[in-house]
Amino acid sequence: MTTNRQWRLMRRPTALLAPGDLVLSEAPVAELKDGEALARVKYLSIDPTMRIWMAADSYMPAVAIGDVMRAFGLVEVVESRHAQFKKGDKLVGLTGLQEFVVAEASPHGGWQKIPSIPFVSDSLFVGTLGITGLTAYFGLLEIGKPQKGETLVVSAAAGATGSVAGQIGKIHGCRVVGIAGSDEKCKWLTDELGFDAAVNYKQPDWKEKLAAATPDGVDIDYENVGGEIMEAVLNRMNLHGRVVLCGLISGYTKGDPGMASFGVVLVKRLKVQGFIILDYASRFTEAATELGKWRMMRKLKDRETVVEGIEKAPDAINMLFTGGNIGKTLVKL
Amino acid sequence: MTTNRQWRLMRRPTALLAPGDLVLSEAPVAELKDGEALARVKYLSIDPTMRIWMAADSYMPAVAIGDVMRAFGLVEVVESRHAQFKKGDKLVGLTGLQEFVVAEASPHGGWQKIPSIPFVSDSLFVGTLGITGLTAYFGLLEIGKPQKGETLVVSAAAGATGSVAGQIGKIHGCRVVGIAGSDEKCKWLTDELGFDAAVNYKQPDWKEKLAAATPDGVDIDYENVGGEIMEAVLNRMNLHGRVVLCGLISGYTKGDPGMASFGVVLVKRLKVQGFIILDYASRFTEAATELGKWRMMRKLKDRETVVEGIEKAPDAINMLFTGGNIGKTLVKL
Repeated sequence: MTTNRQWRLMRRPTALLAPGDLVLSEAPVAELKDGEALARVKYLSIDPTMRIWMAADSYMPAVAIGDVMRAFGLVEVVESRHAQFKKGDKLVGLTGLQEFVVAEASPHGGWQKIPSIPFVSDSLFVGTLGITGLTAYFGLLEIGKPQKGETLVVSAAAGATGSVAGQIGKIHGCRVVGIAGSDEKCKWLTDELGFDAAVNYKQPDWKEKLAAATPDGVDIDYENVGGEIMEAVLNRMNLHGRVVLCGLISGYTKGDPGMASFGVVLVKRLKVQGFIILDYASRFTEAATELGKWRMMRKLKDRETVVEGIEKAPDAINMLFTGGNIGKTLVKL
Repeated sequence: MTTNRQWRLMRRPTALLAPGDLVLSEAPVAELKDGEALARVKYLSIDPTMRIWMAADSYMPAVAIGDVMRAFGLVEVVESRHAQFKKGDKLVGLTGLQEFVVAEASPHGGWQKIPSIPFVSDSLFVGTLGITGLTAYFGLLEIGKPQKGETLVVSAAAGATGSVAGQIGKIHGCRVVGIAGSDEKCKWLTDELGFDAAVNYKQPDWKEKLAAATPDGVDIDYENVGGEIMEAVLNRMNLHGRVVLCGLISGYTKGDPGMASFGVVLVKRLKVQGFIILDYASRFTEAATELGKWRMMRKLKDRETVVEGIEKAPDAINMLFTGGNIGKTLVKL
């Protein structure tokens, strides 16, 4: 009988994940029933939203205490009694933080078969061509509505979503300024990804640098961080600017839910709109095709931070909040 | 020579207006030049936004220290060397907090002649058919986009703008719930204006009452207040709800610029949009006509809190923040 190692949520964390918040346990893989497929997890997608799922009910119910922690991932079918999936198929969906998953067991999984494309790593289907790339695509284009010549600021710009959002801004003719947490990240944004400027928010004069990098103000804020960083960007915004509210990671490990002032939203007549990628599920194929095309044309570049081994999953999650990652963070099993 | 009494801003207030923040001074009315009209102020419109103008540059420059305090108002021309305005004409515009104004002297005034309509008091042209009614009209219809059967919550609902916004919501088939600061105000909203429910936020259990009054959640928040009241309404909102950010009066006298959390905006995918009525100037006539029609059909009712005498203007402004007013607040000269 195969053993499945699983990270279960035992406590709702209030700061960075501490030992005991998630516990690695073992369970036997149950025998397949008709209509099910057993799949082995190849990549776990490590995303800031996992901290939302641990904390409380939100756009999805919170993960129940004792349950396997929710996660997106990429799997390969190893045994199938499922009509659509055969052995060797690769699927993306909500795998959970575990080694094996039974495809029909995940009510929110919405399993999607991925194609084999030469020179395209499977892992991209949970990154640039998957959940984070799609988030950047729909958030920027549907809410931000970038126009040629406008200035776009992206926070957490070296992250999986931010880096794609900024590049899509460039494709649409914007001046793009990234905010990130190290000089290395900033250099990657400007030298590799073609951002017009990048500001390291850990330098004391970063707000002056942000001002200097946005001489015509800011028309679109692709906001991933919240708190002080969001406040600084809002203060640079032009009248009638748009704030794509994608995430508020500065608060996820602090119990501070992205405080900032609505005053500037009022006087600058801003539009601030939250969104969740799941709202656009019916258009995923269209978007992934577009992203794939841009990537092939080298208008879209990416980078991965790959952590090996399921036992490292909590460290990988913490890395999102301490800034150790660049690009898409994955756990490879 | 005629003397003009004028309230000048001498200090930027940080709490309620204190004696000495505004000072009543006298100046002679200058002789008219060609192209100018001298007008006597009949009504001063007392609006929360005046506190924004006193505090700092915002959607308009702050009133300079020593200058006549900015205000909307209604005037009657007493002498004219202006081609369009003749003696006896009534105009609305930025009069300033004073007894006389020279029509051409106000760069932002955008003077507009008002018609004489039987049974319609002149003062309505700075109220329901003027600046506050137009604010309710454009904010609710352009940003809130009310649909039949949706639930609309209006804060500061017994104020000049809130009371009109709620009634327009009723006209569009919404369930309308008002939040106000006294039982008398709540009774006016439900018994006179036809709100479906009204909640007095000064009662300790008001949040439970708000929940009970919004059994299907909230689709539109017409937000005038900010802070704790806004937070409570946001927590009742449905996915994809709209927040019409019209004002944040809870902060205007506290130096607290409408703090609230963006977390709920994210997870509920809300759209929060600030607006300023001046953005819709080209459509004022269309809107005022519509408002007038509704008023004639008794679908739109109003009430005024009229304070007599220019010397009472600072008290009238403070009343907006202490809750002493119902409906439109005016100073009659």
